[in-house]
Amino acid sequence: MKKKEFLDAKENALKSLENACDKKKVDDGALPLLAIINTMEGFYTTSSCAGRIVLLEIPQIGDKRGATFLGIWHRTIESEELATASKKATQGLLWLLAQAPILHIGVETLPLAERMVKTAISCGFKNSSIRSLGKKIIIELCSTERLDAPIGKDGCLFCDEKQLCLIVEISNEVIERSQEKLARLTEKLEKIGDFP
Amino acid sequence: MKKKEFLDAKENALKSLENACDKKKVDDGALPLLAIINTMEGFYTTSSCAGRIVLLEIPQIGDKRGATFLGIWHRTIESEELATASKKATQGLLWLLAQAPILHIGVETLPLAERMVKTAISCGFKNSSIRSLGKKIIIELCSTERLDAPIGKDGCLFCDEKQLCLIVEISNEVIERSQEKLARLTEKLEKIGDFP
Repeated sequence: MKKKEFLDAKENALKSLENACDKKKVDDGALPLLAIINTMEGFYTTSSCAGRIVLLEIPQIGDKRGATFLGIWHRTIESEELATASKKATQGLLWLLAQAPILHIGVETLPLAERMVKTAISCGFKNSSIRSLGKKIIIELCSTERLDAPIGKDGCLFCDEKQLCLIVEISNEVIERSQEKLARLTEKLEKIGDFP
Repeated sequence: MKKKEFLDAKENALKSLENACDKKKVDDGALPLLAIINTMEGFYTTSSCAGRIVLLEIPQIGDKRGATFLGIWHRTIESEELATASKKATQGLLWLLAQAPILHIGVETLPLAERMVKTAISCGFKNSSIRSLGKKIIIELCSTERLDAPIGKDGCLFCDEKQLCLIVEISNEVIERSQEKLARLTEKLEKIGDFP
């Protein structure tokens, strides 16, 4: 990819990010990391999630398209919040997901892509990789903590209050670890400045 | 990487695979796909799992090192098998995992890596990517179906028999979809032969 094409793509990505920020569509938790990556030469962020807890209702096993979001939290939660959200359930399987941060980054060159992936892995984003080498080089930074648990069916939870608290505790740990890792990578990239 | 180095690495990988097969350490379900990839010019497999259901006991939240495997099945299971395996649980959290297939492949060149990743994605291995560009190019083929669910604590299951059956049904679906995708990719690669 030519330098000018890369810089144009970066400019567009930064404008999109600014718009998304104005509309409060970007997770606050990811902003410091996005800011530092976007100041680095040869990189721009294209999408991000700082980690989240999601309550989903899926009409039938495997029918993800028919899924309804009953709750999305980009922070730790109380089990009462989950219990309240689950009252909106009607029919189908209730899934609780706790998802680690995920970032997509456009990169100018392959050596830079490799450096960033290695740096992210060293900060705990062990599932990081190069996703595309086509017209644009895109890398994905992601860590491995997660919970994907069916917790109820047809409006009824499988577990009692005590067990629900424990599942919430586990989900919250995914969020806490996510925040630690985001901070660790942000600090590391701040120290590095630009890759040589 | 030079041609000779690649061919030496491929020779070593094929020997290791043969040894692992002799010791019954390779999942039968992955063998047809491994065989076709290893006949292709520019590729050799380095590790594989055809998808599995795992019952784990973890002493404390996050302590994966202290985890004990109470059951590993590379096939669909009956809920009685899970119930029996869970009777071995003593202390800590019981997790049920259903994991999609994962393959690691050494590749001679970047264009070939990209071709294989794209082909895998088109056959449903949507989480496929280039994992390493260092001395060796390594790609990972992986799909997205999974279940990572805490299902009990200190030897007691959270859910009753009916709910356990449902969770087993979901896990079995991960395995069934895994097998379909492995077959689809095997068939596609057989048709392609070698990438031009």
